[in-house]
Amino acid sequence: MKYAIDELKKRVTRIGVGAGIPEEDAVRIAEVLVTTDMRGIHSHGVVRMARYIDCIQAGGIRPDAVPETLSETASSLQVSAAGGLGIPAAIRTMNRLLEKAADQPIVMGTVNHSDHYGAAGHYAAMAAERGYLAFSMSNTCPLVAPTGGRAAAIGNNPFAYAAPGGKYRGLLFDVCMSKVASGKLIIAAADHKSIPEGWILTHDGKPTTDPNEIWKDAVMLPFAEHKGYGFAIMVELMTAVLGMAGMMSGVHSWNMLPGRDANTGHAFIIVNPAFFGGEELFRNRVDAMIDELKACPTLEGVREILYPGELEWRRETAALKEGLELPEASVQELDRAETLVK
Amino acid sequence: MKYAIDELKKRVTRIGVGAGIPEEDAVRIAEVLVTTDMRGIHSHGVVRMARYIDCIQAGGIRPDAVPETLSETASSLQVSAAGGLGIPAAIRTMNRLLEKAADQPIVMGTVNHSDHYGAAGHYAAMAAERGYLAFSMSNTCPLVAPTGGRAAAIGNNPFAYAAPGGKYRGLLFDVCMSKVASGKLIIAAADHKSIPEGWILTHDGKPTTDPNEIWKDAVMLPFAEHKGYGFAIMVELMTAVLGMAGMMSGVHSWNMLPGRDANTGHAFIIVNPAFFGGEELFRNRVDAMIDELKACPTLEGVREILYPGELEWRRETAALKEGLELPEASVQELDRAETLVK
Repeated sequence: MKYAIDELKKRVTRIGVGAGIPEEDAVRIAEVLVTTDMRGIHSHGVVRMARYIDCIQAGGIRPDAVPETLSETASSLQVSAAGGLGIPAAIRTMNRLLEKAADQPIVMGTVNHSDHYGAAGHYAAMAAERGYLAFSMSNTCPLVAPTGGRAAAIGNNPFAYAAPGGKYRGLLFDVCMSKVASGKLIIAAADHKSIPEGWILTHDGKPTTDPNEIWKDAVMLPFAEHKGYGFAIMVELMTAVLGMAGMMSGVHSWNMLPGRDANTGHAFIIVNPAFFGGEELFRNRVDAMIDELKACPTLEGVREILYPGELEWRRETAALKEGLELPEASVQELDRAETLVK
Repeated sequence: MKYAIDELKKRVTRIGVGAGIPEEDAVRIAEVLVTTDMRGIHSHGVVRMARYIDCIQAGGIRPDAVPETLSETASSLQVSAAGGLGIPAAIRTMNRLLEKAADQPIVMGTVNHSDHYGAAGHYAAMAAERGYLAFSMSNTCPLVAPTGGRAAAIGNNPFAYAAPGGKYRGLLFDVCMSKVASGKLIIAAADHKSIPEGWILTHDGKPTTDPNEIWKDAVMLPFAEHKGYGFAIMVELMTAVLGMAGMMSGVHSWNMLPGRDANTGHAFIIVNPAFFGGEELFRNRVDAMIDELKACPTLEGVREILYPGELEWRRETAALKEGLELPEASVQELDRAETLVK
């Protein structure tokens, strides 16, 4: 079954309003989650809605919190989400940063006292749609071991960037810092397959080839060893250290502790190409870079080189035309969300 | 044999002046290269001096080029290195950006028409020593295949960040985008060892386990597959696309084509913590993050968790006290540099 986009957004909005979220914020959440599903990132789409409501109902998230400005200049902004939902706080902050970016070469904003903000890439893509190059990142509760460590000490800290093209829609890149996404482990577990050693550790820091450990507080390992570790620290530095959010163990899991304030931090940087040679030239140069990537000869069995974001844009376009197919887990969690607010 | 730091810097400066580099720029090059050796990054230390001179003598680098300002605002700067050496152009640009950062939350600068700028981390560390959080990155000639590709299409694009601590000196992270540094391949070749499949491809895109392919134009593969590919594109976007430098195949190898203008691009971002809660608080929070990392329990056989930069700072302190040990290759290349300018 395929969902019509507008209907699905309306349904998510209704559920949000039913959970006590002001309508304008519920609309924002529906927009972010459904767009993320349209781009094929189902792990960060409407599947999350029920858990947001669990947190609201358990007291860990204030559904009607109004973000507060902590500091502001012509090119910077520090916001507190005031213990509210991550998505509306991030959208409001991005909207204010986009206004600033119109007159500035580069602007930066942070959000603290926040919660899960969906797909990091959404906010970077928002800025790219307006002609800007942008970065978006968030910390999370500790999930990943530092290089040489055997306990989860640092978040899986998502990091994204996006930039507009001309004939191409542009670039969109969105990654987290673990070697393997938890989704891959869940699939391996369902298929009764073992995983290579080095993907995760057991909760007490032992090597394992059993993907079922993901259900028992397994410790994630960073991608490319010290490189993933260093990028995770970079995100922690921008979001938590600079952004005055919870750091490391100061961020609480919204999945494990729905009744507790997560104190997550986000950070955004927007660069305005008008101050670096002009928007049109920038878009043309992004196109030229993509052209050259696409022209690279491929490995045997590989049909084409993809640029970051290409698959996501294709899926979004298809979903807009043909409607959106949702995985079973998303359908179930959406039904559960509806039940929660009845 | 151990080299006294001051003597070594003077020697490198003399060689530079002998090659036609203005003294103040030769001093800057000596400072960057020797400091990099002190931090243990010998691949980017004085070993590079002879090749810079090869490029000067072959006509690919103008030793006395004066960087030109292409555009400037209170928080942005675009510089052309005018076909000169990368290191002095980068140092001059950073010095001007540091002045701007004193009054701004965030500033950004780019350098185009440049050449190899040594270790990316040096420029980020320069800003951290002044109390700022900073990023430094550069593109390079194509060395790495995009995911699914079998030819070198994109640079190994180094990326670095640094931030100051209080009781700790702070963070310094500096990586390139390939799975394995070429140094590791050179060592495996010298030891007559094979390498795992997936580290590199032969020049014509075939899998190989022979490290000697590094001498035959081997194609590097990105770390963590699409993640390293995406980070390489990010650096290309900031340095070349936005910075108006050579893009992708538009950058020429200073190692392979010393007579040709490389047209390399660099980009820098500096964030001033004074606008995000204050420098002292920021330093204390960096310390707190490091404390928590260091307290993480270690894997069996691992003595301690290291934070990004810890090894580099330790080596620098030791070299300052005890003098600097240089690898044989560095000693030989420095001798060769001296011969080149006699």
